[in-house]
Amino acid sequence: MPATSPGVLRSGRLRFQPFHAHGSGSTALNVDLKNDRLLRALAREPVDRTPLWIMRQAGRYLPEYRKIRERAGSFLRLCKNPELACEVTLQPLERFDLDAAIVFSDILTIPDAMGLGLGFTDGEGPRFERPVRTRQDIKRLSVPDPEEDLDYVIETVRMVVGGLAGRVSLIGFAGSPWTLATYMVEGKGGSDFRTIKRMAFDAPADLHRLLALLAESVTVYLQAQRAAGAHALMVFDTWGGVLSGHQYAEFSLAYMQRILLNLGADYQGRSVPVILFTKGGGNWLEEIADTGCSGIGLDWTVDLGVARSRVGERVALQGNMDPVVLEAAPERIRQEVAWLLECYGCGSGHVFNLGHGISPHVDPSRVAALVDAVHELSPAYHR
Amino acid sequence: MPATSPGVLRSGRLRFQPFHAHGSGSTALNVDLKNDRLLRALAREPVDRTPLWIMRQAGRYLPEYRKIRERAGSFLRLCKNPELACEVTLQPLERFDLDAAIVFSDILTIPDAMGLGLGFTDGEGPRFERPVRTRQDIKRLSVPDPEEDLDYVIETVRMVVGGLAGRVSLIGFAGSPWTLATYMVEGKGGSDFRTIKRMAFDAPADLHRLLALLAESVTVYLQAQRAAGAHALMVFDTWGGVLSGHQYAEFSLAYMQRILLNLGADYQGRSVPVILFTKGGGNWLEEIADTGCSGIGLDWTVDLGVARSRVGERVALQGNMDPVVLEAAPERIRQEVAWLLECYGCGSGHVFNLGHGISPHVDPSRVAALVDAVHELSPAYHR
Repeated sequence: MPATSPGVLRSGRLRFQPFHAHGSGSTALNVDLKNDRLLRALAREPVDRTPLWIMRQAGRYLPEYRKIRERAGSFLRLCKNPELACEVTLQPLERFDLDAAIVFSDILTIPDAMGLGLGFTDGEGPRFERPVRTRQDIKRLSVPDPEEDLDYVIETVRMVVGGLAGRVSLIGFAGSPWTLATYMVEGKGGSDFRTIKRMAFDAPADLHRLLALLAESVTVYLQAQRAAGAHALMVFDTWGGVLSGHQYAEFSLAYMQRILLNLGADYQGRSVPVILFTKGGGNWLEEIADTGCSGIGLDWTVDLGVARSRVGERVALQGNMDPVVLEAAPERIRQEVAWLLECYGCGSGHVFNLGHGISPHVDPSRVAALVDAVHELSPAYHR
Repeated sequence: MPATSPGVLRSGRLRFQPFHAHGSGSTALNVDLKNDRLLRALAREPVDRTPLWIMRQAGRYLPEYRKIRERAGSFLRLCKNPELACEVTLQPLERFDLDAAIVFSDILTIPDAMGLGLGFTDGEGPRFERPVRTRQDIKRLSVPDPEEDLDYVIETVRMVVGGLAGRVSLIGFAGSPWTLATYMVEGKGGSDFRTIKRMAFDAPADLHRLLALLAESVTVYLQAQRAAGAHALMVFDTWGGVLSGHQYAEFSLAYMQRILLNLGADYQGRSVPVILFTKGGGNWLEEIADTGCSGIGLDWTVDLGVARSRVGERVALQGNMDPVVLEAAPERIRQEVAWLLECYGCGSGHVFNLGHGISPHVDPSRVAALVDAVHELSPAYHR
């Protein structure tokens, strides 16, 4: 298949044609939301308490999730089944009084839609059968059309919007271009990233071509999720933190910036709040804030108070409890919540979350302890 | 074996008795050093060019190292054979005009001397047969006596001092208490650190007891390396970066601070320059500088210029090229060297190094390109 031209999707459709909003119809308007704490905090507008959601909140720590996953047969089949994906998206909201839902999906849906042969091996994480290594490999790739190649995600978003019926905000998401590229080039995650870093040093033009294609793919994918009803968007830059500062600026941040610019201008003249989360990005908070994102996701190594003093006048901050805290005793969880709330201090602009996804080892009762602590302790910071 | 009292070594000797300097006799005095660039840079005194050494410079990327390692039979047997360990320590100095040697050893010698059963599995890294999990496990541990339980390391230092004959400075080293504890509690490295983090949350007194014992063990071990002739010391805090800021301060930095205080007062009224290297510690440079260390080791994610503006008036900075650069073309290596030198800027206080250990995949000719670039480009910053 020939590569698509810039601005043209894999399906041949033009990139900037308006998407059709289906489902609840409330899509771009937040007036129907019964709980808009997430959106208010991202806009740094007053809230009655600190909003809270949990990365990977629909996940293996929940027995009801494990049941559905078993029924689906595999993680990827669960992602690709909108009814079941919608069901697991809503599960944590049934158990806990959280302030946002996040569509159940995976960051690797885009490279999967590009035909690289995604598979998940137990304990080893994702692998691609056909990694992208050469200029020819890159030239063969094209921008997936969200409404065709990723229709299952967009359909899941629509169904979740219907299922939520305005209870809380819905977050759509994608992987960052750099992070997607690491998986596509290395063929897997969590390595020493030698292959893609060598490409960055010895064939930067090829890598830039790949990243540009991915930035366009992520843009249209996020636009489609937005059009289908997502109220906020998040970009997961899981592997930006393995880069040196100038390489992060060149190969990761620049492409997240491009996505933000395109998203900002595209959708009915309204800008959608976007959270950028670079794991290990604590060194670069100022540069991330400069992109004009609404919020920065922080991993647990960043001091929340220091982060606020560095960039809190410009962006909201999301995070950043060490996920392992949820394996400690409930009173320790409460102490840690108190500590983080005190670190951030008074006023809006904080979205409570973990600094990384919740672990499968967590007992759901500990999540309840977390939710209770945030509900009980945070109002004092919003008077 | 009963645990030793504080101040008493496993062997029953008192902790603060003076160590006997063997070998070259030049030990604590640097006047005999033909090349003292490392020590001058750590003291931020003028140098003619930026000193350079490479973490893991005696390692698998060198064919002459692989030959000796094969002869030794295993990595650990090589560490424990002073003649061979001395030989591989000196190997990179024969090939490259470097400004320091670092004793060939491993950070896990201390827990090995504590009897935990250290082994190395190919591709998986170190493992302990008997990890430390309970209060009873911790109570059974005692401070190894460097001159008895770690005599092979001290003997290696003495032999290297003799072999160097004052050519360049010799660096002794140890793992940080936190980093040693992670391996001891988890039983291995590179995990999600759930076991030790749970101990930090649910049994902090036990963990503090372990860390105090390790801080004492590291202190006497470094003192013995110093007494045997090491001119500078380095503490590798490989896993400090997995902690949240307040836990880093409590469980890692506090114990490195304790080591520094003890070292500073202990040795013949002279303080030995100490470099603290916390991988992923970019968020905490000010706090690390506050310990009174001479130098901070930086991983490659930290911008060297930003780091200098944050703490460069107080400490020297060591680093911080991404190790993967050494797999790029020689002209790219030169560009990266130029960039880093420019980031640091004019004046002393920079020790050129990688941001992490050199990879076994590197061709030694690329190291030569690095050395040449530092030699040719750095004098302009010292006029």
